[in-house]
Amino acid sequence: MSKYKEIKVALLGAGTVGGGVYKLVERRTAEMPDKVGAELKITKVLVKNLQKKREGIPSEVLTDDWEGIIHDPEISIVIELMGGVEPARTYILQALEAGKNVVTANKDLLAEHGQELMEAAERNHRDLCFEAAVGGGIPIIRPLKECLAGNEITEVMGIVNGTTNYILTKMTQEGWDFDDALKEAQRLGFAEADPTADVEGLDAGRKMAILASIAFHSRVTFKDVDVKGITKITAKDIQYAKEFGYTLKLLGVARNEEGKMEVGVSPMMIPSTHPLANVNDSFNAVFVHGDAVDDAMFQGRGAGEFPTASAVVGDLISVARDMQYDCCGRIGCSCYKNLSMKPAGEARHKYFLRLIVEDRTGILAGVAGVLGNNGVSINQVIQKPAVNGVAELVVITDKVETRHLNDAMMIFGEMSMIREVASVIRVYTQK
Amino acid sequence: MSKYKEIKVALLGAGTVGGGVYKLVERRTAEMPDKVGAELKITKVLVKNLQKKREGIPSEVLTDDWEGIIHDPEISIVIELMGGVEPARTYILQALEAGKNVVTANKDLLAEHGQELMEAAERNHRDLCFEAAVGGGIPIIRPLKECLAGNEITEVMGIVNGTTNYILTKMTQEGWDFDDALKEAQRLGFAEADPTADVEGLDAGRKMAILASIAFHSRVTFKDVDVKGITKITAKDIQYAKEFGYTLKLLGVARNEEGKMEVGVSPMMIPSTHPLANVNDSFNAVFVHGDAVDDAMFQGRGAGEFPTASAVVGDLISVARDMQYDCCGRIGCSCYKNLSMKPAGEARHKYFLRLIVEDRTGILAGVAGVLGNNGVSINQVIQKPAVNGVAELVVITDKVETRHLNDAMMIFGEMSMIREVASVIRVYTQK
Repeated sequence: MSKYKEIKVALLGAGTVGGGVYKLVERRTAEMPDKVGAELKITKVLVKNLQKKREGIPSEVLTDDWEGIIHDPEISIVIELMGGVEPARTYILQALEAGKNVVTANKDLLAEHGQELMEAAERNHRDLCFEAAVGGGIPIIRPLKECLAGNEITEVMGIVNGTTNYILTKMTQEGWDFDDALKEAQRLGFAEADPTADVEGLDAGRKMAILASIAFHSRVTFKDVDVKGITKITAKDIQYAKEFGYTLKLLGVARNEEGKMEVGVSPMMIPSTHPLANVNDSFNAVFVHGDAVDDAMFQGRGAGEFPTASAVVGDLISVARDMQYDCCGRIGCSCYKNLSMKPAGEARHKYFLRLIVEDRTGILAGVAGVLGNNGVSINQVIQKPAVNGVAELVVITDKVETRHLNDAMMIFGEMSMIREVASVIRVYTQK
Repeated sequence: MSKYKEIKVALLGAGTVGGGVYKLVERRTAEMPDKVGAELKITKVLVKNLQKKREGIPSEVLTDDWEGIIHDPEISIVIELMGGVEPARTYILQALEAGKNVVTANKDLLAEHGQELMEAAERNHRDLCFEAAVGGGIPIIRPLKECLAGNEITEVMGIVNGTTNYILTKMTQEGWDFDDALKEAQRLGFAEADPTADVEGLDAGRKMAILASIAFHSRVTFKDVDVKGITKITAKDIQYAKEFGYTLKLLGVARNEEGKMEVGVSPMMIPSTHPLANVNDSFNAVFVHGDAVDDAMFQGRGAGEFPTASAVVGDLISVARDMQYDCCGRIGCSCYKNLSMKPAGEARHKYFLRLIVEDRTGILAGVAGVLGNNGVSINQVIQKPAVNGVAELVVITDKVETRHLNDAMMIFGEMSMIREVASVIRVYTQK
C-alpha cells in the first residue's frame, strides 16, 4: 500500500474535455505524490448514457448515479464539465454543501450564477476553481486573482473565442465570406452544428463577464455585457479595414473608468501592428492593464481537449494542495466592490462606417454635415469609385459618445441619398 | 482600532523597486482587508545610508539595523530587494529560521543558492516567493508552479532581459551599432554604467536557470547555463538576418528532451513571423510548451519600478493569505526530479555563419566541402558581391551537433582563403 493518502475525485461529464482530464490525470499519476503530497484518482465519471463507449475512460468508473457521488464520503473533489446551467448549478451547490471542493469550466453558469456559487463555496469553506472557464489552457484567472492582485486593473481585453477568431482569420487571409468560413470551421470541428453561441458573441460575452468580475472586484453578469456577433461582417469590411491599417477581430473589452464599468464584445478594428492583430486561427489572447504592471498579455490555445484539461488539472492540483494544508477556501470571491455599469449611450468609441450612397455631387458634404451637426468628427474618409450609379463612402470617426453616433445614424436612415448604412464597426482605441 | 489584524512587513533595500513596493503597498492600504483579511504595513525599511532621502518612504521607517528586524517578533514577512548574493543570502536564511516568510526578486541569489533557500523555507514551513525574479511584472513563476502543474513541460524560452532587447531593437529598427545602442540605453536608464551582466547574457542566464528548475522539476543552477552575450553582434548580422526572413533576439532556451536538459542564452535568429520577433524595446516574453497546454505565451514589462513592484506585491498578498489560513509553505520546492544536463557538444542546432573570404573561384566549393565533410548540411547560402578583393559568404545550416560545427570552424580557421569567421549565430528552431 502506498504511504500516501489517496484523494478521490468525481468527474461530471465525459465529453471531449472530460476525456482529456481523465487521460491527463492518469498520465500524471506517478508524479502526484511529489506534486501534492497525495495520490489523486478519478473514481467516478458521471454520464447520461452508460452504454456509450468513452475512449480512454474504463467503463467500470462510469456511473449515471449522481446521488451515489454526492453521498460518497470518500469523494472530496467534484469536477463539473457537463456545461449548461442545469443540472450543473444544482450539482455544484449540492457538492459544496456536502463539503466537496469543486473545479468547473462552466462559463455559462458562472456568468449568470457566479455569486450564488461563490457564496456557497465561502459558506462551506471549500474551493471553487474555474481557470478553464476563460481562455482554455491559458492561465488567466489565477494570475488575475493572485499575481496581479496588487494592481488596480483598468482594462481587460482580448480574443476569447477561438471559433470566431478562426472564421475571421480565414476571411482575412483567404478573402472568404462569413458563410464559407463558418462551414469550414464546422467541418474541422471548431464550430458546432448550431454556431449561435460562438458567432453571436454570447460565449465571448460570458467569458468577459467572468474576467471583468475578477479584474474589477465587482460582480458583472452576462446581462451587463453589450454583445454583438460577427454574422454581418463582410469580406469587404475586412478589405477596407486593411486599407486603413486595421485588422478585424471579435474583441471583448472590459474597462473600469473612474468606477464605472463598461463590458462589451463586438467585432472591432484593431491596428494591424497591435500584438492581438496577429493572434490567429483558434488561438486566444488576453491583455490586462493595471496601474502597476502596465500591460501584460497572456496567449495560448483557447479550447480543445488537452489545453482545457491543462487548466482543469492545474485547478485540481491546487485544490489537492489546499486539502493537504487544510486551507480550502483560501481564495474565494474577490468581488468586494460594488461598481456600477456605465450607461450604454455614454460609452465613447471610435467607429468605422461604410455607407452605400447615390453617385451624385454633394454626398460627402451631406454626410459630413450630418456627422458634424451631431458632434461626430471625422478622422479619415475614403470615397470608393461608383459602380452603376452607387458609390461607397467609408468613414472613420474620432471618439464619439454612442448616443451621438446613433442620432446621426437615424438621420442617415431618412436621407434618400444614402441607400444603406452597410456597416458600423467599432475601432479599438486605448483608453 | 481596526477590527483587522495587522501583518507587519520589513523591506530590505530602498532602491527603485523597493520604493515602488513601498508606494504600491501604501496605495492599496484600504483594500488589503478585503484582499487578505488583514491590514498590511511595511514598518521597517533596511538601508545602508540612513541620511539619504528616499522619495516616497517616510524617514521614520528607515533603519540600518538588521538585528532589529530579525528579532522583531511582530514582523512576519521580509521582502528582500537588496540584490547580490551576500548579505542577501544570510538575511533570507536568518529570516526563514526566525519563522518569517520571505518574498524576493533576487535572481542572482536564486540561480546559485536556490536549493539552500528552498530547503530552509521548507524546514521552517514558511513561504519563499520570487515571482519578481523573472520577467519583472509578468506572471510566470506562479502560472508554471500552479496553473500549468498538470503538464510535462518540454520547453521554456523567451526574451528575459529588457536591456539587451532594447539594444537589439534599436540596432534592428534604426540600423545603429551595438556601441551606440548601448550608450542610448545607458542614457535612458535601461542599462547600467557597468552593463556586463546584461549584455553578456548573465542576467538572462540566471533567469533561465530559475525557469528551467521550475519547469522541469530539476535543479538547474547558473553554472549549468550556456551563456553568450550580444557584444559581438553587428548591424550587418542583423541586416543579413532580415534578408533571410529572421529577426535577431537574445533568447533564453531551456529544453527537456527525453530527460536530458539543455539550457542556454545566446543571440539567436528567429523567424520574423514568430510572435517573439515583434516583442520589442524593453518588453519581455516567455513561451512555454507543455504536453497538455501546447503553447502558452506570457508577455509584459520585464523591469521597472512599478511592474516589478506588481510582482512583489502579488507575492506579498499571497503570503498574507497563506498566513490567514495558516498554510505557509503550501507550495515549496518543486524540484522532485533529478534530470541531468545534456553534454554541450551533443546539442543540435541550426546556425547562421558569416564568413569573410577571398574573392576567388572555388571558395564556395571549398566551404561547402569542409561543411559536408563534417556532417554539416547547408540550408541556404548567399554570396555577397566582393569589395576590394574580399567577399562575404553567408550560410544557414541545417540542424547539426555543436561538436561537428566546431570541427568545421576549426578547419575554416586554418584555411588561407577564409579571412575570418565573422559570425556564428544560432537559428531558433522548434524542437
